[in-house]
Amino acid sequence: MKYCSHCAGPLTVEVPPGEDRPRHVCRQCGRIHYQNPRVVTGCLAEHEGRVLMCRRAIEPRRGLWTLPAGFMELGESVVEAALRETEEEARARVDIEGLYTLFNLPDIGQVYMMFRGTLRDQDWGPGPESLEVALFGEREIPWEELAFSTIRHTLELWFDDRRRGHFPFRMGDILGRGSGQPVLRLWPEGQSSSIQRPKLHS
Amino acid sequence: MKYCSHCAGPLTVEVPPGEDRPRHVCRQCGRIHYQNPRVVTGCLAEHEGRVLMCRRAIEPRRGLWTLPAGFMELGESVVEAALRETEEEARARVDIEGLYTLFNLPDIGQVYMMFRGTLRDQDWGPGPESLEVALFGEREIPWEELAFSTIRHTLELWFDDRRRGHFPFRMGDILGRGSGQPVLRLWPEGQSSSIQRPKLHS
Repeated sequence: MKYCSHCAGPLTVEVPPGEDRPRHVCRQCGRIHYQNPRVVTGCLAEHEGRVLMCRRAIEPRRGLWTLPAGFMELGESVVEAALRETEEEARARVDIEGLYTLFNLPDIGQVYMMFRGTLRDQDWGPGPESLEVALFGEREIPWEELAFSTIRHTLELWFDDRRRGHFPFRMGDILGRGSGQPVLRLWPEGQSSSIQRPKLHS
Repeated sequence: MKYCSHCAGPLTVEVPPGEDRPRHVCRQCGRIHYQNPRVVTGCLAEHEGRVLMCRRAIEPRRGLWTLPAGFMELGESVVEAALRETEEEARARVDIEGLYTLFNLPDIGQVYMMFRGTLRDQDWGPGPESLEVALFGEREIPWEELAFSTIRHTLELWFDDRRRGHFPFRMGDILGRGSGQPVLRLWPEGQSSSIQRPKLHS
């Protein structure tokens, strides 16, 4: 951000009066340009214990696998955004069971919210942003070819919860993305120790 | 938004190639400027059945009562943002019990997330954005002087749930803000019919 979107004046970064942190402020008209985290939302859609996944046709992470998800848009609810993304990326219609995970990614200013749902029918397939779409059981999932850590953690929790027979809402932070080995810290903190990815590739 | 924040070129509103809705696009450098909903978060902090509320010292709704809440910032989690706002507006420290409500406000591009918590101590008071801070029981709450419909609905649900002895996570849309009489539609839809504000001012 270099210029004011209202008057095209040059921006400076300073702490405005009455605020506690630096903001982009216009030197010409004085407007403050706030930046806030964005919501990413999608669905973990199940059919008989298998999960609907998409192989990405676009960057970032083209060619890797993900759950259908994307940025929430103005004018819609989080549920509507999750259903829209699932329709766009996997051409699938889902009955939503509820909100399942909320992961903060403070390093990149994102809040991920994934819903649990069941596929309404078997009429699905790749949308323009997907190379292919498929249903995977736990042992079939391409664990080494997942696009995002948020997706890996959501899948791990879901298969774990499925064995236990209930799906509590989970909240946590994904930290250390810069290190290449991001870690999920579930809230409350103690919970995280019980979550281990099953060793399937022995 | 009239000018490109990257090159100060003039913006136009058009549907970019491969997208399905109008965006602000720079005529000079071609950059797309996305706009997304913002997250507002805060705490319903309890002490022995009474709830900590703030009377607003700032616009909008100066002089009216609210729960401590505000916009989530870059670099923090939703919980951290809720705790920060509670500290800033009510000088209070809270032990968070969990996420309680998620309300979509599609008319104004906001997602409200309120946490339940308990006050850690009785050392609280107005921060710079509050005229006063007080603990209210259900019959003491200034129901006719609440700042936001999100706050009214969160309080109504909480006192209702408190009578039942459990606090399920609630998700819903607040619609019709333009009409002056916003309505909460809880998800799934059927739930909303059971929620009625108690008639306390008879």
